Amino acid sequence: MEFNKIIRGAARTANNEQSIYNILDAGFLCHIAFQHEGQTMMIPTAYGRKADAIYIHGSTKNFMLNQIINGSTICIGVTHLDGVVLARTLFDTSANYRSVVLFGKAELVTNPDERIEGLKIITENIIEGRWNEVSVGSENQLKATMVVKFRIDKASAKVREGGPKGDEEITNEVWSGHIPLSLKASSPVLDPKFGVELEITESVKHFCEKY
Amino acid sequence: MEFNKIIRGAARTANNEQSIYNILDAGFLCHIAFQHEGQTMMIPTAYGRKADAIYIHGSTKNFMLNQIINGSTICIGVTHLDGVVLARTLFDTSANYRSVVLFGKAELVTNPDERIEGLKIITENIIEGRWNEVSVGSENQLKATMVVKFRIDKASAKVREGGPKGDEEITNEVWSGHIPLSLKASSPVLDPKFGVELEITESVKHFCEKY
Repeated sequence: MEFNKIIRGAARTANNEQSIYNILDAGFLCHIAFQHEGQTMMIPTAYGRKADAIYIHGSTKNFMLNQIINGSTICIGVTHLDGVVLARTLFDTSANYRSVVLFGKAELVTNPDERIEGLKIITENIIEGRWNEVSVGSENQLKATMVVKFRIDKASAKVREGGPKGDEEITNEVWSGHIPLSLKASSPVLDPKFGVELEITESVKHFCEKY
Repeated sequence: MEFNKIIRGAARTANNEQSIYNILDAGFLCHIAFQHEGQTMMIPTAYGRKADAIYIHGSTKNFMLNQIINGSTICIGVTHLDGVVLARTLFDTSANYRSVVLFGKAELVTNPDERIEGLKIITENIIEGRWNEVSVGSENQLKATMVVKFRIDKASAKVREGGPKGDEEITNEVWSGHIPLSLKASSPVLDPKFGVELEITESVKHFCEKY
């Protein structure tokens, strides 16, 4: 993996493999940017990571997936918004975040074992343990599912944390500091359509403890 | 504003101006995808909206801002992750979300009044009321700040909500349903560097009630 030099806000650089993996593993929603007939496009999707590979999936008819496996270098972004930073001036007002931007190529996964492994990596990244609780789907559903692997060629990461900086000289005595933000789960909602009360599973319990 | 037809997951289409504005106004973090020397790139940033214009800002030396004002059509994505949807099969497992993808052109704002207005729109979108509590910054800081306006030419929105669908025939009696996720604020952290205890302001109070 190579690293892209960060020029603006260089102090926030977190360009090392472990930081990049930590940021990727802390979420499961990415945005994928690619080109179609010269036009830049972007679509959000779920992902999972194994080493320097990002797995994504979708319908075999999925427009983006069919586009991005064409051999061109695409771009994937993952950002966690960790808070707002309120300085004594708006100029020094900022946000806390962890973000990665990845460059690399995507390819169709055709090996049946790796297809299943890719789906497991995505599922386990979204909700650990769910893979063992439910079936993956029917043969026809599997056939209708495309698994795509993206290999990270170049990456960069930026992290900002803590309180305001740069407003040390401002004498206006107004509250300043930061307000943490994080993604939180609320109570699981049972699907009522089966008409049975069921206990939440280990994976659901674990998810609710994590978020 | 034109709308881009959504082909995959067409049932989730929310292609009307009000839905698009509601999704945009529910957040302040976007990803901007653009091209640089033929390569697709993406960078996250804060934004604010007025009518069909999205304002963003940064340093006059900001690489992305200087790139995107070149007259090409760029792409902006905003996604709110609202939860995970756990069906009785992995095939029908999904996520709840609200997302918009916008296409349009960005231009440098040069009019001094609109520059200030743009900064106010961004600030108020992040934290309502903060604009009136602190100064915008010094003349030099303002000079070092670039304000860019993006006009929405084409847009699409997708919304998924509620519980699992498609697994009606699955007899495996395992907990299924959905787990809501949302961005939550925790207690504001006072900047200790001034050594004074200060009451939180109205904007901070309002932000913590909102999140």
